[in-house]
Amino acid sequence: MVILDAKGRGKNQRIQSGTMLQTLTWTGDAVRMIDQTKLPARTEYVDITDEKQMWDAIKRLVVRGAPAIGVAAAFGAYLGIRTFSGEPQTMLLRLSEVCDYLATSRPTAVNLFWALKRIQAVALAQLESEDFTAKQIQKCLLDECLKMLAEDQEICRSIGRHGAELLRSVGSKPSHNILTHCNAGSLAAITYGTALSPVYVGIEQGMRFHVFADETRPLLQGSRITAYELKHNNVPVTVLCDNMAASLMSEGKIDAVLVGADRIAANGDVANKIGTLGVAIVAKHFNVPFFVVAPTSTIDLATASGKEIPIEHRDSVEVSHPFGTQSTPDGIEIFNPAFDVTPAALVTAIVTEHGVAKAPYTENLFAIMSNPQAGK
Amino acid sequence: MVILDAKGRGKNQRIQSGTMLQTLTWTGDAVRMIDQTKLPARTEYVDITDEKQMWDAIKRLVVRGAPAIGVAAAFGAYLGIRTFSGEPQTMLLRLSEVCDYLATSRPTAVNLFWALKRIQAVALAQLESEDFTAKQIQKCLLDECLKMLAEDQEICRSIGRHGAELLRSVGSKPSHNILTHCNAGSLAAITYGTALSPVYVGIEQGMRFHVFADETRPLLQGSRITAYELKHNNVPVTVLCDNMAASLMSEGKIDAVLVGADRIAANGDVANKIGTLGVAIVAKHFNVPFFVVAPTSTIDLATASGKEIPIEHRDSVEVSHPFGTQSTPDGIEIFNPAFDVTPAALVTAIVTEHGVAKAPYTENLFAIMSNPQAGK
Repeated sequence: MVILDAKGRGKNQRIQSGTMLQTLTWTGDAVRMIDQTKLPARTEYVDITDEKQMWDAIKRLVVRGAPAIGVAAAFGAYLGIRTFSGEPQTMLLRLSEVCDYLATSRPTAVNLFWALKRIQAVALAQLESEDFTAKQIQKCLLDECLKMLAEDQEICRSIGRHGAELLRSVGSKPSHNILTHCNAGSLAAITYGTALSPVYVGIEQGMRFHVFADETRPLLQGSRITAYELKHNNVPVTVLCDNMAASLMSEGKIDAVLVGADRIAANGDVANKIGTLGVAIVAKHFNVPFFVVAPTSTIDLATASGKEIPIEHRDSVEVSHPFGTQSTPDGIEIFNPAFDVTPAALVTAIVTEHGVAKAPYTENLFAIMSNPQAGK
Repeated sequence: MVILDAKGRGKNQRIQSGTMLQTLTWTGDAVRMIDQTKLPARTEYVDITDEKQMWDAIKRLVVRGAPAIGVAAAFGAYLGIRTFSGEPQTMLLRLSEVCDYLATSRPTAVNLFWALKRIQAVALAQLESEDFTAKQIQKCLLDECLKMLAEDQEICRSIGRHGAELLRSVGSKPSHNILTHCNAGSLAAITYGTALSPVYVGIEQGMRFHVFADETRPLLQGSRITAYELKHNNVPVTVLCDNMAASLMSEGKIDAVLVGADRIAANGDVANKIGTLGVAIVAKHFNVPFFVVAPTSTIDLATASGKEIPIEHRDSVEVSHPFGTQSTPDGIEIFNPAFDVTPAALVTAIVTEHGVAKAPYTENLFAIMSNPQAGK
């Protein structure tokens, strides 16, 4: 893993204002990603050249956000076999091992599994359909990764179009005040992001927004990342501590909540960053619409309800030592789940690239997944 | 302001285990307080010798928690006139100035005003009733401060007795899981504290508890102070980020919420540390009893409802630079209210030293304030 500047030589690349951030690009030899653990103080890019570096980058949250993790994992799988020179069948066994390994980096992220399955399916199809060499299959896999990258950009824009339309139906104010939690913006995906795409696309269409960003303890993705990208993209933003959202909503200052999702179960239950459940309950209490904005790759019809979603518990140091400074006495027990599950009953609508689903979710999510035109 | 060790000479006094922490004591010449801004890493005491130091200590949260602030402010008023040597009438004018000055240190804390009024009333009564000298009135004021200190200890114990009785009626588990927010424990008062007193008194009576402490951003009084004092007093404690409380409650892990109050309006609306409102809404959603545990000095019948309570907004640096490390990009707007208001409808009961009030609060708080026997 190499840390590069704008010309690929040093450290601390500055992003020029006026351009959308590029979370992940393919350099021709490596996956170049913004190191999101360094934001907002430093804008550094890392070049990932093998599957171990990718596993580490996903685990350490160098790259994060369900869609970006999916694309990163696909590239990780490709990096794991790109120098393989034996029999195609043996390479596929190796690919399977690499995918199993990458799947352990973030066990809650369904996009990770989805992307790894897709890459494996492509490889298998090549092997079965024609008499390809390992090298030719490697080329197919790289093409598939690049296709996923382009698809993600288009998916995000499409999510944004549906979301902006939905937001136009919320109130009649000249400017919308949006609350968001964690980061499901452009830095969570490839360009427009998911939860923030309705804001970016809405602005392109002439709408006005002010975004209130929960800081999102323990890792502060809201203050570090959401605030950074919104400021970079010239959207007015206010940062607050997670526990201040109820106060804002009680004052009538929030028109809608937009959050992303790590996994959406068939019944509409939503696993997302820890704290989302609390925001949803508070939004319900104050009759503020609570919108989950995510690509259909996040919807997992094989998971019947949120109860089946495993919740990752992370290192207690994230809570006990914010920024490396001890905030709790020694030897204290810490509760640090990375996600929570918001039941479908608290979700006003789920916005996808194929349209908007509302309750009853079991029917309507199935319809969207079966027939992408259904929600349009 | 001098930082002292156990023998009054250096730094870093260690508190011996097995003894309850002493938040504030009178040395005979100074008010000795634990510097709560240094917890949990360092246990340091400061000696406050004049009103300016006291103003600064209250403002900077060296001393915090409504009851402790009240006693500290009373001593601050005394310190402001203790060396005065002119006419008693002139000293009373000076006392009035000192009180007005101290009242500006924490504008939301009603105990502060209550304590300052009480001290002024005592001085005025002395002046009117007999031909006292300034020196004699100074002595009376010091006696009143010491009386307030002793009273607070007794009030806290009495709150604890009523609260422990109430908790016995919640569920039938051998051990109670309590969620608390911020610190309204022994470090917020003089010995037993308010919100945590039912836990301490309950343990004395043979009950068992596990306390889950919200870390309480931005100043982390939960992780720094509540966890510190519970551990010191041998109560099992788990620290969590504020946004994790909903997850805990959704799993049925919390039997009751105990929080303190900075001000309770006549209708039962409760101003308390920012984040309390969110906890109350989430508790209501999951049918977890939400108890406000506070002395009657916190009840302000002159304030009809929570809408009339001014909310202090604090420095944005508390949010943008946790532990001095920048977590937001430069030039970002920050929302940082110190308190929020929980409407009475979300409060299961208010526990005071004179007993427990339930809805309708307008009647029942008035009854408790008019006739301390009413709630018993």
